[in-house]
Amino acid sequence: MRFHKIINDPVYGFITIDDELILQLIAHPYYQRLRRIHQMAMAHLVYPGAVHTRLHHSLGAYHLMRLALQELCSKAIEITAEEQQAAKIAILLHDIGHGPFSHALEHVLAEGMHHEDISLLIIKDLNKQFDGKLQMAIDIFTNAYSKKFLHQLVSGQLDVDRMDYLTRDSFFTGVIEGAIGYDRILKMLTVHNGELMIEEKGIYSIEKFLVARRLMYWQVYLHKTVVSAEQMLRRIIKRAKQIGATCHEPLNSFINLPLENVSLEQFCSIDDYDVLVAIKHWSHHPDKVLAILCRGIIDRVLLKVKYAAHPFDGTIVAEKATEIANRLSISIEDAQWLVFTGEASSSTYNFENEHIFIWFKDGKVKDISEVDHALINENMQHKIKKYYICYLR
Amino acid sequence: MRFHKIINDPVYGFITIDDELILQLIAHPYYQRLRRIHQMAMAHLVYPGAVHTRLHHSLGAYHLMRLALQELCSKAIEITAEEQQAAKIAILLHDIGHGPFSHALEHVLAEGMHHEDISLLIIKDLNKQFDGKLQMAIDIFTNAYSKKFLHQLVSGQLDVDRMDYLTRDSFFTGVIEGAIGYDRILKMLTVHNGELMIEEKGIYSIEKFLVARRLMYWQVYLHKTVVSAEQMLRRIIKRAKQIGATCHEPLNSFINLPLENVSLEQFCSIDDYDVLVAIKHWSHHPDKVLAILCRGIIDRVLLKVKYAAHPFDGTIVAEKATEIANRLSISIEDAQWLVFTGEASSSTYNFENEHIFIWFKDGKVKDISEVDHALINENMQHKIKKYYICYLR
Amino acid sequence: MRFHKIINDPVYGFITIDDELILQLIAHPYYQRLRRIHQMAMAHLVYPGAVHTRLHHSLGAYHLMRLALQELCSKAIEITAEEQQAAKIAILLHDIGHGPFSHALEHVLAEGMHHEDISLLIIKDLNKQFDGKLQMAIDIFTNAYSKKFLHQLVSGQLDVDRMDYLTRDSFFTGVIEGAIGYDRILKMLTVHNGELMIEEKGIYSIEKFLVARRLMYWQVYLHKTVVSAEQMLRRIIKRAKQIGATCHEPLNSFINLPLENVSLEQFCSIDDYDVLVAIKHWSHHPDKVLAILCRGIIDRVLLKVKYAAHPFDGTIVAEKATEIANRLSISIEDAQWLVFTGEASSSTYNFENEHIFIWFKDGKVKDISEVDHALINENMQHKIKKYYICYLR
Amino acid sequence: MRFHKIINDPVYGFITIDDELILQLIAHPYYQRLRRIHQMAMAHLVYPGAVHTRLHHSLGAYHLMRLALQELCSKAIEITAEEQQAAKIAILLHDIGHGPFSHALEHVLAEGMHHEDISLLIIKDLNKQFDGKLQMAIDIFTNAYSKKFLHQLVSGQLDVDRMDYLTRDSFFTGVIEGAIGYDRILKMLTVHNGELMIEEKGIYSIEKFLVARRLMYWQVYLHKTVVSAEQMLRRIIKRAKQIGATCHEPLNSFINLPLENVSLEQFCSIDDYDVLVAIKHWSHHPDKVLAILCRGIIDRVLLKVKYAAHPFDGTIVAEKATEIANRLSISIEDAQWLVFTGEASSSTYNFENEHIFIWFKDGKVKDISEVDHALINENMQHKIKKYYICYLR
Repeated sequence: MRFHKIINDPVYGFITIDDELILQLIAHPYYQRLRRIHQMAMAHLVYPGAVHTRLHHSLGAYHLMRLALQELCSKAIEITAEEQQAAKIAILLHDIGHGPFSHALEHVLAEGMHHEDISLLIIKDLNKQFDGKLQMAIDIFTNAYSKKFLHQLVSGQLDVDRMDYLTRDSFFTGVIEGAIGYDRILKMLTVHNGELMIEEKGIYSIEKFLVARRLMYWQVYLHKTVVSAEQMLRRIIKRAKQIGATCHEPLNSFINLPLENVSLEQFCSIDDYDVLVAIKHWSHHPDKVLAILCRGIIDRVLLKVKYAAHPFDGTIVAEKATEIANRLSISIEDAQWLVFTGEASSSTYNFENEHIFIWFKDGKVKDISEVDHALINENMQHKIKKYYICYLR
Repeated sequence: MRFHKIINDPVYGFITIDDELILQLIAHPYYQRLRRIHQMAMAHLVYPGAVHTRLHHSLGAYHLMRLALQELCSKAIEITAEEQQAAKIAILLHDIGHGPFSHALEHVLAEGMHHEDISLLIIKDLNKQFDGKLQMAIDIFTNAYSKKFLHQLVSGQLDVDRMDYLTRDSFFTGVIEGAIGYDRILKMLTVHNGELMIEEKGIYSIEKFLVARRLMYWQVYLHKTVVSAEQMLRRIIKRAKQIGATCHEPLNSFINLPLENVSLEQFCSIDDYDVLVAIKHWSHHPDKVLAILCRGIIDRVLLKVKYAAHPFDGTIVAEKATEIANRLSISIEDAQWLVFTGEASSSTYNFENEHIFIWFKDGKVKDISEVDHALINENMQHKIKKYYICYLR
Repeated sequence: MRFHKIINDPVYGFITIDDELILQLIAHPYYQRLRRIHQMAMAHLVYPGAVHTRLHHSLGAYHLMRLALQELCSKAIEITAEEQQAAKIAILLHDIGHGPFSHALEHVLAEGMHHEDISLLIIKDLNKQFDGKLQMAIDIFTNAYSKKFLHQLVSGQLDVDRMDYLTRDSFFTGVIEGAIGYDRILKMLTVHNGELMIEEKGIYSIEKFLVARRLMYWQVYLHKTVVSAEQMLRRIIKRAKQIGATCHEPLNSFINLPLENVSLEQFCSIDDYDVLVAIKHWSHHPDKVLAILCRGIIDRVLLKVKYAAHPFDGTIVAEKATEIANRLSISIEDAQWLVFTGEASSSTYNFENEHIFIWFKDGKVKDISEVDHALINENMQHKIKKYYICYLR
Repeated sequence: MRFHKIINDPVYGFITIDDELILQLIAHPYYQRLRRIHQMAMAHLVYPGAVHTRLHHSLGAYHLMRLALQELCSKAIEITAEEQQAAKIAILLHDIGHGPFSHALEHVLAEGMHHEDISLLIIKDLNKQFDGKLQMAIDIFTNAYSKKFLHQLVSGQLDVDRMDYLTRDSFFTGVIEGAIGYDRILKMLTVHNGELMIEEKGIYSIEKFLVARRLMYWQVYLHKTVVSAEQMLRRIIKRAKQIGATCHEPLNSFINLPLENVSLEQFCSIDDYDVLVAIKHWSHHPDKVLAILCRGIIDRVLLKVKYAAHPFDGTIVAEKATEIANRLSISIEDAQWLVFTGEASSSTYNFENEHIFIWFKDGKVKDISEVDHALINENMQHKIKKYYICYLR
């Protein structure tokens, strides 16, 4: 009997693991840590169902990779068993470098570190632990492997990462309009000249996919209340660093020591739970700014936030800062932690960096923005930017 | 206890009828006839689940109207009980004038008659039978009623008709990408200056709705195999008329008598079943053209069809006609029934006739194509046209 | 590239056909005829979504067979490629012998013929047309093949036939409580001593399956309004035969000639459409009984029906018959076509004929009714019977 | 415009809050704390989607209460606006007394305290804060209110609590077989003689509901791996108390002080996050037993667990304890923290305490176990008991 384990997933039904190495990776503490990192940081404050984890998302992306590889193989695209395993490992571990609250605290807890760089460090560490068996996965992850389409499945316009996160985030938030036809898209995948492409009749599904992503950005990821909560979270960590607020270890080291003094192993031992308990602790901190921000996250009393099409005038911020400073008997500088502006942006399709290639039956290949009657056109080459102001009520 | 009947619907769960008059209309033979008219004509030849009926769609649209009116009332928009009943009746009966195979045979069986005109004739007839109780529904249906938004809910860019048919057709075909967020759209409906509008935060849902419609058109309604089957259907009726092929009554009168000689009552007694049995009968007809077309529909041996971005050259048709004429020993004229070209078109948003108004919190109103970063823009003002050729294999 | 066709199914997503012979069988007119036979006869008069076809159900059962075979193979149960093809063909064609309105008219149109016998006749006919390639499918269908579990997958307590019809009928009626965990059941299938069994941890899923079936019987298949409509349908055909009512051919032969005078080919050319058009025709028949029954089906004016726990007293029927005879000026004998009693029954689990075997990890095998704490127990060995009376209002 | 807030829920679509007081209660820190308590404790270690919260469940139960009250009102059962508000508050707050990891740590952290008692304490505290506006909700919660059926909706065989948790837990685990037809059950609710009942035609839905619960217990809540993890969790807290392991406040007080020394306010400030961070901390504790159990929870290295129909022999435990003691160089007493037996039990329907009354059209009322052909019968009066052993691998 072939080795075979199934995991229940409300999104896809069952996820099958039929590879011993992959099972060992899933069982590794570094991977299990992802159970304690929310996929969508603070979005659950608006969408209470959105409490799913990075572990769940990674498993889902792995599942889609498995289906994608099956589909490509059935179209006579050559992918060896070893390559299949490597591609599945690459996607399984692609987010393993995410720290507490993922993107919301990226660059803040571990300043200047991008989560993909940390993922790579961890995968390399695992590669040692597993006697070099992850080398091909590393090559695919870093786009050093000859079959470029395998990397594109891990990271690209049509990667299974975003196929899973759109599907899963839409499922758990209940914003069903964000759902994409992932099964149809998978069936339309093909490879030409070593590049991942979409068959002609999949164009409308891809349009739908891009519009779904656009919707999810503005309705969910950049929802004003979510932005407010995640900005508060960032400011909590920054303020704690500034004033040297202490908490339990090893999180305390990330707050109070230079990054070079903390180890990868320490990084791999912190998660959302540590940050949240620190926030609970700091909600009684004598520093008013820190205490207010922390209490706000715990009790869901968030900074008021407004979006506008144009940047906010600096005088508004100054006025509000003065008002807050007076009200709380704090300095203007401190008050500016509680009133601030920012911008949120998202591109539907970026004409310079992004390419979704459509493969036509007659052998022609076109960028999706160049097909006849394209929905995706030059008007969309600019990012949509919106400006916000957050302030204490 | 209040009068109350519930109908199971796989799409919405339960549909509630809580009005005696509406129940009587549903029970009327004219309405029950819609059980025997497919909502999607021949689409089930490609999507086997798409066998739902006009009756089911009408009930669904009625259900959405009920929700839409509840929503608007909860927003303090004044709608009397009588108006609510009338709007529900108008949508319930909006498709009652559809003949066999709905759009696929429109203008063919009853030449020159649009189904909405026939609907109006039938609603007027019912109004007599029900002692004038349908007069306000007629006024709403014909846009003669003062509260314009009630008509817009029945027939307009945001009407519950298309909300239901996109939702329902997507459900029964299994093309889940065609699903729209009808519940969110309903919650975003509002009325200003007597016109139906969408609240600002509903913009992305509306974009999704327009793109879903675009997808359903090209993936389902204008799927090449569906187009082939429906063109064959039209040609069967036309050929039968041309050669005077007979069948059972009263369908025979529609085939062989001038339209003015057939009554509304006769119209209300024919349905898909009559046409299909006639087709089965004619599949043994001595006229080769008629027999081939009929046999093709029954056995699902359809004309080969190809789509192209540009019109097909007449010489291709001529060549194929010659080949077919020789093969079947028929005249070139007759062969042209078995090879022909045509065009299919669909607009995503028509800038001249169509308006979806967005209502902003500051009181401004904009057409959806004019909001910042609009997905729907001038590039989309032209219809998408595709050209097809159909021919006997 | 491997041969490969996909069909959209709202229930399972996509159904894959990857065998040329199976595709040819699907394309055969005998199979395409199943598009014109409702899976659930008259149930759509209560559940308007229940208009799906025998073709759709057969495709679904084929899909589940494909998954079941994959699952068993992954458990190292030996099934050759030829056996897999044969099992898939057997289930694909298992219902091909159904006539118009399936069970509702079984034994009435073709008196004394069980649909499985006709299926076998047709499969044998197809076997000739396809040069004997269906022989192993026939052996599996008739339980003449050595690997008994293959037959059990086609026809048995755990066959994919009922897994599909419960799933599909539940889906299209919207009675979601009838849904079963088909994917989990499939994953729990195993084979021991040549017999199909369920692994121990699947017990609760099977209990749920049996209770779902019980619910579907009483809530849907034997819903009193459905029973009324289907009894009317049977009486229409019987009455037409009795009085020699004529209609179009070849249905007319089934009504008015002895069964031995009609051919298999003729059988394969009639469907729901013929019967319904005949009913429309007879709704104007001079025979009052026939006309009333026919008009009732067309306009959904059904006989009143009541269920009771005990048989109805004959005097009630006699009284009502007298009343109807007087009202319609017909004889008592004729009136008895419009008032009658009957019984409906269904067993949840039949201890004598039915066995669902549970395979325990320690190698023991038990009937599901014998496991500890069984939900399915001796109390359930009797059929549930309910008695009904139908009569003209 | 009426006050009106909607919350997205993947299970029900939208949850509507249209009452200012209810919104204030939701915004209260005591209620927001439920965001940090998993609904299903450690079940996510088996079912990764099962990370939903007590807050989400409470909102869902509130939503079903709202629908139930609407349904009963439409059946002319008298419920005043005040009673409706009170019933909605009672269900909204019914779980507010749950501590970290809900049932899994019940009676362990706060020894001898049942969560419903704590809920009552908290609701009374809120009642003071809200000037006595919660008094009727308290009366309904404690069954002191005259209309008994309101209490039964909050807590009883057909309460909206279990309707939501079965529906929601089934949804988030992906064990779709646990789904119940909550919408149909709600439509079948009625009240006679002041008691909540089910209309006759709802019997099969209720059977399905009981069988779904049975399935969820054994497949999910009492899944052996879940039992193992939750037993480990209990033992961690007990061991910490025994050896006086310290952690951050205020959790530390619960571990190391007598219960009477900790306040309700302190109780309301601890949640899953505190316990999990303490477990991470203790995974480096010098006490081997505590460290092993803690490391196991964090890395998902769980004690091996086996179920059996009969109690395990004490000698097996003794043998394993000896083996573990030797292996880890700890005492036998300490080893017994790492090998132990227990029992899990669940009743499908308890004939003594539980009643689900069926109301027949003729006015009769029967217990569901007494109706003809009952699925629920005397055989089921005993609890199902299973015995387990857990031990360090």
